[in-house]
Amino acid sequence: MSQYRVLIEANDAKGIVYKVSTVFFNHNLNILSNHEFVDKENNRFFMRSVVDGDVDLTELEQSLNNVLSSDTSIKVIAPKKKNIIIMATKEMHALGDILVRHEAGELEANILAVVSNYDKLESFVSKFDIPYITVSHENLDREEHEDKIIECIQRYDDIDYIVLAKYMRILTPKFVETFEDKIINIHHSFLPAFIGANPYKQAYDRGVKIIGATSHFVNNDLDEGPIIAQEVIHVDHAYSWKDMQRKGKDVEKIVLSRALKLALEDRIFVHANKTVIF
Amino acid sequence: MSQYRVLIEANDAKGIVYKVSTVFFNHNLNILSNHEFVDKENNRFFMRSVVDGDVDLTELEQSLNNVLSSDTSIKVIAPKKKNIIIMATKEMHALGDILVRHEAGELEANILAVVSNYDKLESFVSKFDIPYITVSHENLDREEHEDKIIECIQRYDDIDYIVLAKYMRILTPKFVETFEDKIINIHHSFLPAFIGANPYKQAYDRGVKIIGATSHFVNNDLDEGPIIAQEVIHVDHAYSWKDMQRKGKDVEKIVLSRALKLALEDRIFVHANKTVIF
Amino acid sequence: MSQYRVLIEANDAKGIVYKVSTVFFNHNLNILSNHEFVDKENNRFFMRSVVDGDVDLTELEQSLNNVLSSDTSIKVIAPKKKNIIIMATKEMHALGDILVRHEAGELEANILAVVSNYDKLESFVSKFDIPYITVSHENLDREEHEDKIIECIQRYDDIDYIVLAKYMRILTPKFVETFEDKIINIHHSFLPAFIGANPYKQAYDRGVKIIGATSHFVNNDLDEGPIIAQEVIHVDHAYSWKDMQRKGKDVEKIVLSRALKLALEDRIFVHANKTVIF
Amino acid sequence: MSQYRVLIEANDAKGIVYKVSTVFFNHNLNILSNHEFVDKENNRFFMRSVVDGDVDLTELEQSLNNVLSSDTSIKVIAPKKKNIIIMATKEMHALGDILVRHEAGELEANILAVVSNYDKLESFVSKFDIPYITVSHENLDREEHEDKIIECIQRYDDIDYIVLAKYMRILTPKFVETFEDKIINIHHSFLPAFIGANPYKQAYDRGVKIIGATSHFVNNDLDEGPIIAQEVIHVDHAYSWKDMQRKGKDVEKIVLSRALKLALEDRIFVHANKTVIF
Repeated sequence: MSQYRVLIEANDAKGIVYKVSTVFFNHNLNILSNHEFVDKENNRFFMRSVVDGDVDLTELEQSLNNVLSSDTSIKVIAPKKKNIIIMATKEMHALGDILVRHEAGELEANILAVVSNYDKLESFVSKFDIPYITVSHENLDREEHEDKIIECIQRYDDIDYIVLAKYMRILTPKFVETFEDKIINIHHSFLPAFIGANPYKQAYDRGVKIIGATSHFVNNDLDEGPIIAQEVIHVDHAYSWKDMQRKGKDVEKIVLSRALKLALEDRIFVHANKTVIF
Repeated sequence: MSQYRVLIEANDAKGIVYKVSTVFFNHNLNILSNHEFVDKENNRFFMRSVVDGDVDLTELEQSLNNVLSSDTSIKVIAPKKKNIIIMATKEMHALGDILVRHEAGELEANILAVVSNYDKLESFVSKFDIPYITVSHENLDREEHEDKIIECIQRYDDIDYIVLAKYMRILTPKFVETFEDKIINIHHSFLPAFIGANPYKQAYDRGVKIIGATSHFVNNDLDEGPIIAQEVIHVDHAYSWKDMQRKGKDVEKIVLSRALKLALEDRIFVHANKTVIF
Repeated sequence: MSQYRVLIEANDAKGIVYKVSTVFFNHNLNILSNHEFVDKENNRFFMRSVVDGDVDLTELEQSLNNVLSSDTSIKVIAPKKKNIIIMATKEMHALGDILVRHEAGELEANILAVVSNYDKLESFVSKFDIPYITVSHENLDREEHEDKIIECIQRYDDIDYIVLAKYMRILTPKFVETFEDKIINIHHSFLPAFIGANPYKQAYDRGVKIIGATSHFVNNDLDEGPIIAQEVIHVDHAYSWKDMQRKGKDVEKIVLSRALKLALEDRIFVHANKTVIF
Repeated sequence: MSQYRVLIEANDAKGIVYKVSTVFFNHNLNILSNHEFVDKENNRFFMRSVVDGDVDLTELEQSLNNVLSSDTSIKVIAPKKKNIIIMATKEMHALGDILVRHEAGELEANILAVVSNYDKLESFVSKFDIPYITVSHENLDREEHEDKIIECIQRYDDIDYIVLAKYMRILTPKFVETFEDKIINIHHSFLPAFIGANPYKQAYDRGVKIIGATSHFVNNDLDEGPIIAQEVIHVDHAYSWKDMQRKGKDVEKIVLSRALKLALEDRIFVHANKTVIF
């Protein structure tokens, strides 16, 4: 008996649920959970089912292919650990949260390496027996630096996600394209407020009563990628921007880990620069 | 073209989704939204679909009956305004929130009457051209008082819900049975904390840092019915219990109105003293 | 015995608390509550005390003046109902929330009138025996329209606050200057995200997972005034922008009423385009 | 120049603020922050000031003693790292959160040791170069087991706090008395709901829509000690109790670390089984 995650995305049309559930029924599969959503604005259909039963992955995929129209995206996934690379700079909280969860067995992931532009976190990461690769940006222009990082990363096979756990440098379009749809970032504001540098200082200057954090996929427009998860906390006039930064760390790490978990469990669809999350 | 809400509840079995979606497909119905849930502990299946198309309600119900096992609960509902009675005592906030929403056209409801054991809210309710019935409990024992209320309510036909908008008297089993599964209450704590009288005073005495409100269906055990919605707010040492009460009102009214809206839109299933909400 | 709110704002200097508490002590006043804050960035001191005792307001103010430096702002306020004008357009929720609270005696306010550019809410407001003044903007340019509104408002004496309860037109600098520091607005986003028109549509298009509302004082820069209160709610991919708008109303009304209450209770200081709230 | 935290607690009386601020003024001290609260029900006054200036701790304490009545509790504290012992059982999340914060320099604390009744977390804790002491409860009655733990702990001097980071055994009154007012626990529910064992199972069975966590000082009544911090998250019918447990961990660790931080920064007063937190 095997368990599969079935992800279907297509232009909406009458009968998709009928066709899919017919396939499941004919294969004698148990539906453990089932979520559907139609984005009416874009006429787009999304479905995630978890099924179990005595069927082969390829066979199930084939059966779905046979009944669904050719423009349908069909993924049948057998749950397994995904391979991730973490990128960080100097801060420990978001990185540490992922490392501890990994250690506790909470994540369906192999952490292949941590890459940083500083060596500051090396001794910390080493505790967890995970390779730490320092790629200093000193004396390098942005592209040279990134080329070195890309080279480091590409030594590893089958990378599923690159997690930016407070990696504090802007990525070039080349980097983003190289790892398209695979880069998950945490931005330390409730986007789209306070795009860019030092959002806590911006929030302090604006006098907001709420600060937040946003995890999103990275595309070429800075802080403009599809949002996966957001969370906020209340602040008041007594918070300096340093206080906001300190307090904000708790939200940042929880939101990034939550987004990563959603990705590892194949719960996220991306369409029209938005996410559908089941 | 008609739009229907289809609610299905049954013991879980392979093929229900397949059978239901086959019926929808054969009737050429569009699925506007679709939610399913299996309560594995109780082996219970729940489904709510909104469909539209050119089919008759009775016919659709019949088709579903034909394919589903006889122990299945099937409801096909054409959206329409439901009839509600509101019961209150002396406080205006929860009642007022419902009356303003009703006035603004936010609720799929006809408010038939407001029943209270005091006349305090009469002039307020009269502004909204809704009958106000005072049934004083003075010189009556609990059952006599309730009998008079029941009599008042039963003058109205087809009552869908009785909404207790801070009705501050305990209901007898007889009352609850008379309007079984129809009574929605707001309790001014995050149940099951602070069951019973004056929960804000209890919360203050315990020194909690969070207070809340809970909307639930009423059954015979005081404050033990199936929970529909809950919400909380933060408090601190500077709150007296009167402050908590004042602040709590905002949560109470929002939670009660939210629960009422879910009921009016046929989004709630009740099973094993819990709710499944789509 | 009288109760006073004492508000002090000054450039920070050693000894202010000492001097103020000496005055309170010498007048044999009881301190019921006391809050202080130093904005270190701007070297600015804020203090709000509630005192009671057998002293005259003018006398207390004089004593404070005698010991504090001449650049200090000192306000001694005897709590009383403040006069407010509400401006609205077509939506009932925020206006209704204030009217019901007023009716319930929750607000330290006299509502002098509701002014709108449409007559849509007239019958609703009339229920509450509050004057409703329609000032249509049809066939008028922005300034002509506002001049008529200003004229209406200025017929009333001693206006403390003008509350924009979803008044959907942009105010000119002239209007804002006429009622400087007195205008409280509710904006239907967590500012500074989604400044300008239709923030729910903007939020939907961006695919955010959280929406919010912001109450702020109005100054000449649209949606840029000092923020008083903010609140948010979670949304997901299944929310259309109309759903966001519907759900957002609950936050809007609670936040606006909360901000209004803070203003009525003299709890807000404004400095450097931010608020200090005690 | 030194910085001190001044904590004052006394029966409320006119003039305390005056007297304290006079002392600060006479010592030429700068008040960096100042918080006061009067618990009217218990007629109890609380004050926390942070001052800096050129004064000796003992001298300042003496000056305050001279002017305040003899029943006043006065503490003048020079900020320094406090000594803590962590107790855990098998779960890594709350413990790990503290260890990572400690590593990142976020906590004013020396972690002297981690004590557990299992060796499961030993290799994890060892990464952080912190002593791990396994005191198995096997073949020991509760008191024998605790005696061994007490002995272990008392080998360390000057213990300020004992942090129960999901230590899953009930403590005896003897243990609690030995470390009176020093034990901080995290309970995995929003107390007082779901006191006792397996609160997530209890929450699941009750069908709540919100779960939470509570950090509190431990006294002799199980889960009845003064509450320091609470936080909640929303759940729905689709959460099994295992899902609640998983999701709840994020709240547990954040709340415990927040409470610990408040304690380390001397921000908590305890009176009448409640906390006053500045």
